[in-house]
Amino acid sequence: MHYMVGKPLSDIETPALVLDADLLEHNIEKMAAFARNQGVNLRPHAKTHKCAMLAHLQIKAGAIGITCAKLSEAEAMAHAGIRDILIANQVVAPEKIERLVGLSRYSDVKVAVDNPDNARTISEAAQRRGQVIKVLIERDIGMGRCGTRNLEETLRLADMIVKLPGLEMAGLMGYEGHTVFLTPFREKEEQCLKAIGVLVETKEALNSAGFKTEIVSSGGTGTYNITGLNKNITELQVGSYSTMDLKYREVGLDFHLALTVLGTVISRPDRQTVILDVGMKGITREFGLPVAKGLEGATVRALPEEHCILELSAGNTSPAVGDRVELYPTHGCTTFNLYDNIHVCRGGIVEAVWPVTARGAMH
Amino acid sequence: MHYMVGKPLSDIETPALVLDADLLEHNIEKMAAFARNQGVNLRPHAKTHKCAMLAHLQIKAGAIGITCAKLSEAEAMAHAGIRDILIANQVVAPEKIERLVGLSRYSDVKVAVDNPDNARTISEAAQRRGQVIKVLIERDIGMGRCGTRNLEETLRLADMIVKLPGLEMAGLMGYEGHTVFLTPFREKEEQCLKAIGVLVETKEALNSAGFKTEIVSSGGTGTYNITGLNKNITELQVGSYSTMDLKYREVGLDFHLALTVLGTVISRPDRQTVILDVGMKGITREFGLPVAKGLEGATVRALPEEHCILELSAGNTSPAVGDRVELYPTHGCTTFNLYDNIHVCRGGIVEAVWPVTARGAMH
Repeated sequence: MHYMVGKPLSDIETPALVLDADLLEHNIEKMAAFARNQGVNLRPHAKTHKCAMLAHLQIKAGAIGITCAKLSEAEAMAHAGIRDILIANQVVAPEKIERLVGLSRYSDVKVAVDNPDNARTISEAAQRRGQVIKVLIERDIGMGRCGTRNLEETLRLADMIVKLPGLEMAGLMGYEGHTVFLTPFREKEEQCLKAIGVLVETKEALNSAGFKTEIVSSGGTGTYNITGLNKNITELQVGSYSTMDLKYREVGLDFHLALTVLGTVISRPDRQTVILDVGMKGITREFGLPVAKGLEGATVRALPEEHCILELSAGNTSPAVGDRVELYPTHGCTTFNLYDNIHVCRGGIVEAVWPVTARGAMH
Repeated sequence: MHYMVGKPLSDIETPALVLDADLLEHNIEKMAAFARNQGVNLRPHAKTHKCAMLAHLQIKAGAIGITCAKLSEAEAMAHAGIRDILIANQVVAPEKIERLVGLSRYSDVKVAVDNPDNARTISEAAQRRGQVIKVLIERDIGMGRCGTRNLEETLRLADMIVKLPGLEMAGLMGYEGHTVFLTPFREKEEQCLKAIGVLVETKEALNSAGFKTEIVSSGGTGTYNITGLNKNITELQVGSYSTMDLKYREVGLDFHLALTVLGTVISRPDRQTVILDVGMKGITREFGLPVAKGLEGATVRALPEEHCILELSAGNTSPAVGDRVELYPTHGCTTFNLYDNIHVCRGGIVEAVWPVTARGAMH
């Protein structure tokens, strides 16, 4: 792959994941500026890109660390030199808890907890190894996924955590994921404020009962400019903003589409049909079909497993067999996870090839 | 991973891809018996499982070789000892054609062609390296993807192929992919017979004009028992039958669901909600939500990126945090492509761990 550096985009072997370096830097700086101006910490979610180099750029631009979805993702990022990591998820299996405790010796890892038994198991493992594990209580703020369901339960869990040896109560977390794609903005704002209201109420109840909440973590790319304005929120877990995708673009997010998938035309069976060598194994479609970049009047008609079928408008005759076409993905996070490498381009020239460090790391 | 062999299913680190060896063997033998009885060759499509060991089992049961979707998939399978490979797709980029010619020295590889320029480029590369590449003409038989669009064009291409040095006309291929999921069976049968009619007509026209069509390749898991009955079809490209998935099950295919994804319960936030540690990065959902195996009354309510949210029926209280749950995928082919390994189990005990040899091989 690295022999591609210095060559034009059109030389890249396809399918390939392509990042526009200028647009990426713009996005990273825009979110960093927002966080600086609001005085909120940025802890970008690495589940989006799974790429250590990209995470390093986010940290260089001011982020305090990263968020990870899974333990193995956190391990991969720690090995790549990232120290401050929040695993915004439950780590439950005994062998994984052993790994979590092991990781905590080499990095500043924090983990979400929503269940007393889980807290107890982590405490026991940490004690056995002479470590202290920082935990955040996860509160469900309306999404109906993980998280404590009410105040009473949250307070009981906090009380347990502060009493258990080997645990340190590091704060509170809640994700308003059910609101990030809402439109219009007013509707999203209303639902998001309601969700954040639950989180703030929980924080205040914890503080009143004498529990510290140094970290209050929340926020996605879709809600950063609502959640990030609340002074009770200490850090944002935004993920998709750096590379973006069509789904976030559709709901009005003002970041650039830096990510594309490059394909090659392998067949032009008739005048209006263009077949590319990239299908749903190279660009995911759970959020809809991709869109061809810079091909006026061309529509993606279907995306089977190994092909993308483009229909050209009448009169449009390019591209030809062998030509390259870039596609915008509707869902960046799952598309990154299909690739081992990212081709980073500037002005149409490959500048670097970055490994997708945590590709497939879901354990 | 291999330290898992001999241990129970419930010890596997999750998310994990699990294959039931008994059910897999049943499926492989059932299709092999069909082919034997009909006197049609079996060339299973390896794009489904991307696993060399599974392909070896299919060949041991009587398959003459395998079908691949991409050149890199074919390379991976050739390295794993499989000799007779049809790349049922166009190989177009010059560097890839060089690789195709290179591969042809070490394996009996055949490739689909639907375009005169492509045929010419392959011929030139083959000549330069002193090789002969076997090509199949791909005919569109109604799907509107790759393939020649009419008889005249097909005959012209055949004429060109037999005249070009470095090429050998190995036959004809057409895929009735637009019919494989049709219901009821009568409707599928009608459309499939129509598509196969086009392929047979093409074969007869080629033969009448003096062109040999030693191979006539077609058929998917959804149409094997229609296409496979036509004596003009020499081989079937069936893929999904060996491991199956819910989408094929839904349209009435009588093979066992041998493939599951194993998850762990990481949260039980309320009485009716079960959260698993496997989301769309561990089980794809472009064909719909997965279904939990053996959990009566449990419904998958949502499948975000890293979680599966199950809703239990009233009165149902298991499973607990830490318990394992198996999910049936709706789309096996793309789910295989997310994993590096398959845990092969027999009677609930891990018997082997097989690499997904061609995971991510789409180049």
